[in-house]
Amino acid sequence: MRPTAKWLSHTNDVTATFLAAAQIPDLINLAGGLPDPSVWPVEPLAQLSQEVLRDDTAAALGYGPVPGLPQLRNALAQRFSTDQLRLTADNILVTTGGTQALAAVAEALIEPGQAIAVQTPTYLGALDAWRARVPRYLPMALEAPEFDPRPAMRDAQFAYTVPNFSNPSGRLVDVAQRRALIEAARDTGCWLVEDDPYGGLFYDAPALPSMLALSAEGSGPGSSCEGPYDGPVIYLGTVSKELAPGLRIGWAIAAPEMITALAAAKQGMDMFSSGICQMITTRAMERGLLESCQEAQVALYRARRDAFCAALETHLSPYFTWEVPTGGMFVWAKSTVPGLDTDALMQRGLAEGVCVSPSSVFDPAGQDRTALRLNFTLNPPDRLEAGVARLARATKALLQEAAE
Amino acid sequence: MRPTAKWLSHTNDVTATFLAAAQIPDLINLAGGLPDPSVWPVEPLAQLSQEVLRDDTAAALGYGPVPGLPQLRNALAQRFSTDQLRLTADNILVTTGGTQALAAVAEALIEPGQAIAVQTPTYLGALDAWRARVPRYLPMALEAPEFDPRPAMRDAQFAYTVPNFSNPSGRLVDVAQRRALIEAARDTGCWLVEDDPYGGLFYDAPALPSMLALSAEGSGPGSSCEGPYDGPVIYLGTVSKELAPGLRIGWAIAAPEMITALAAAKQGMDMFSSGICQMITTRAMERGLLESCQEAQVALYRARRDAFCAALETHLSPYFTWEVPTGGMFVWAKSTVPGLDTDALMQRGLAEGVCVSPSSVFDPAGQDRTALRLNFTLNPPDRLEAGVARLARATKALLQEAAE
Repeated sequence: MRPTAKWLSHTNDVTATFLAAAQIPDLINLAGGLPDPSVWPVEPLAQLSQEVLRDDTAAALGYGPVPGLPQLRNALAQRFSTDQLRLTADNILVTTGGTQALAAVAEALIEPGQAIAVQTPTYLGALDAWRARVPRYLPMALEAPEFDPRPAMRDAQFAYTVPNFSNPSGRLVDVAQRRALIEAARDTGCWLVEDDPYGGLFYDAPALPSMLALSAEGSGPGSSCEGPYDGPVIYLGTVSKELAPGLRIGWAIAAPEMITALAAAKQGMDMFSSGICQMITTRAMERGLLESCQEAQVALYRARRDAFCAALETHLSPYFTWEVPTGGMFVWAKSTVPGLDTDALMQRGLAEGVCVSPSSVFDPAGQDRTALRLNFTLNPPDRLEAGVARLARATKALLQEAAE
Repeated sequence: MRPTAKWLSHTNDVTATFLAAAQIPDLINLAGGLPDPSVWPVEPLAQLSQEVLRDDTAAALGYGPVPGLPQLRNALAQRFSTDQLRLTADNILVTTGGTQALAAVAEALIEPGQAIAVQTPTYLGALDAWRARVPRYLPMALEAPEFDPRPAMRDAQFAYTVPNFSNPSGRLVDVAQRRALIEAARDTGCWLVEDDPYGGLFYDAPALPSMLALSAEGSGPGSSCEGPYDGPVIYLGTVSKELAPGLRIGWAIAAPEMITALAAAKQGMDMFSSGICQMITTRAMERGLLESCQEAQVALYRARRDAFCAALETHLSPYFTWEVPTGGMFVWAKSTVPGLDTDALMQRGLAEGVCVSPSSVFDPAGQDRTALRLNFTLNPPDRLEAGVARLARATKALLQEAAE
């Protein structure tokens, strides 16, 4: 007897490779998208957890409403509201991590064979979340000159973007491009998903306005529109980077009608998200824990980004090219050596004690073997430098083998 | 712009009705499947939550493995192992509540249009969890004399049963019937799902062996089979009744190959379950909190079952018939008055200040309007009696209207 759903034959084995890699002694992990545990506010969270169990017992331990506890939905509506962007609890769905929001969007919008327009390269976890709905993918090369999102969006049920420091490319989508995407969404009737786990990680300049906020321009006080937000953007956030992944709390912000559909999908996935984790998140927001955590992260990660890019310059410039990211967690390194296969390089890297993510896993078609996603937030500068040196050794060894 | 996936048009509105009902002052809720909050070990959980954040920080706050933390998978393997039933961590998937396990089984086994054989009436939450996969349903009337599960199971991808005090019928499936289901699963190659949230709630007799345990008979020490469990049963458990729903921790126990498939489905739903909640559950199991909670529940709920059934006898015997359940949370009351519509009775009950669940929501076809599911665990005896009296008034009023 075997499990039989067809999508199971299309899972990739990179996750298993990474898990096995965790057994290698002294491995330097540049593959994940992991925060540095030193930024977690452990003691405040420990205090809060005890507090919410004692003081918010029913909310923490009982069955809760599918779309989330009112306390958290209200706090999120308030946090993301601006003069122009009016949000109420009806605009908010609490999800079990950002992954569940991605899965819910596909469940609400995709029949097998229908299309998703995706910013390429595309976040692996999103591809995983959509696999069981068996979508087609229409690539959007946002960075291409004269790029027009309309053709892809016209044929898609929704468009998926990570405007702030995309996973995996680390790229920032500029404001003009954000506006163009919103306009295209309006013109084509295509929902526009803005996945924003890295929005708090701007290292060199103030944060850009979200597409959610931009799409509400002109609808603020004095405008004719009085109700809560009902635009085309579905904004996804999470505390996985802002606080800690183990809470598994994320959210979707969208038009109330879309939130109702996403809640129906969520109901079938896990009924509701942990009340303990929802209340810890609510209280952490009230106490400003997100802001202090963000401040610590920005300082720490900026220095690591600088150290990492310097090490890349020293060791990898003969083989790869990259842009220094102005935020987020990743450098996207593109091979400049024809025929250098980054799937093979990932395997070779493991032998040298370094783990990286090959571009193939971020390609919906699984074909691209020309780039690497490299993470600079988990390791301190000396380990980052050592990791890059190992990666350079692996690259040389691989090229030498190919030449022989 | 509207969400478009077709399954969204098949959701029922009973959940919305229940949520709206929560606004009615002094409403007596006999509709849910809710534990009494007085049995929650609040203070021990508050202590544990602080402890795991301080002492198990990486496991509690970090990214965890998709199938669950090794600590919890090992603890569950140990808890459910017997002389005959050998379980390892590879037999265990940790899920975000029992709902996620149900959803994952459908994702792993069902293509749209394929069939699930279901014990009827069927748990509403399971129907919700499967809705987006668009299955067909083949009813199994387990209580019918001479019932043979083979015809339904031959055409189904899996069979769904709640052998201990089924939700909604409260029925206990006896050992002979359990064996017959296992044999049918073997004969037909159909997976057999044993959903067991109420297995700790036997009020009148010792617990019966699970189908998981029964299906491992003859495979213990001295038998030729040496590996971990690889039988046809997929056993689902949860701490929602054993400890508290707000933890959102459940599990599937099955053959390793099935666990791998379920983990792939889970990965796309929420990547992993809250580390905080997994570690609280692990430590609660180590400290015996589940056992002490169960003892308190059994004593409390047994007395409520007795008070409730006495009240039914007093007020509802002219209109309904029922069996006194020997465990669990529900009485299934079948109308004895031809034409009494239990959907209408639910609405009429709200006007009288009592909320009940009509049989239509437990019928995959949504047609059955002849019975009610009544919960006796949430309210103390005086409220149970008052609720039944209100329900009797509603029934009389409805029948009077119909006669006019």
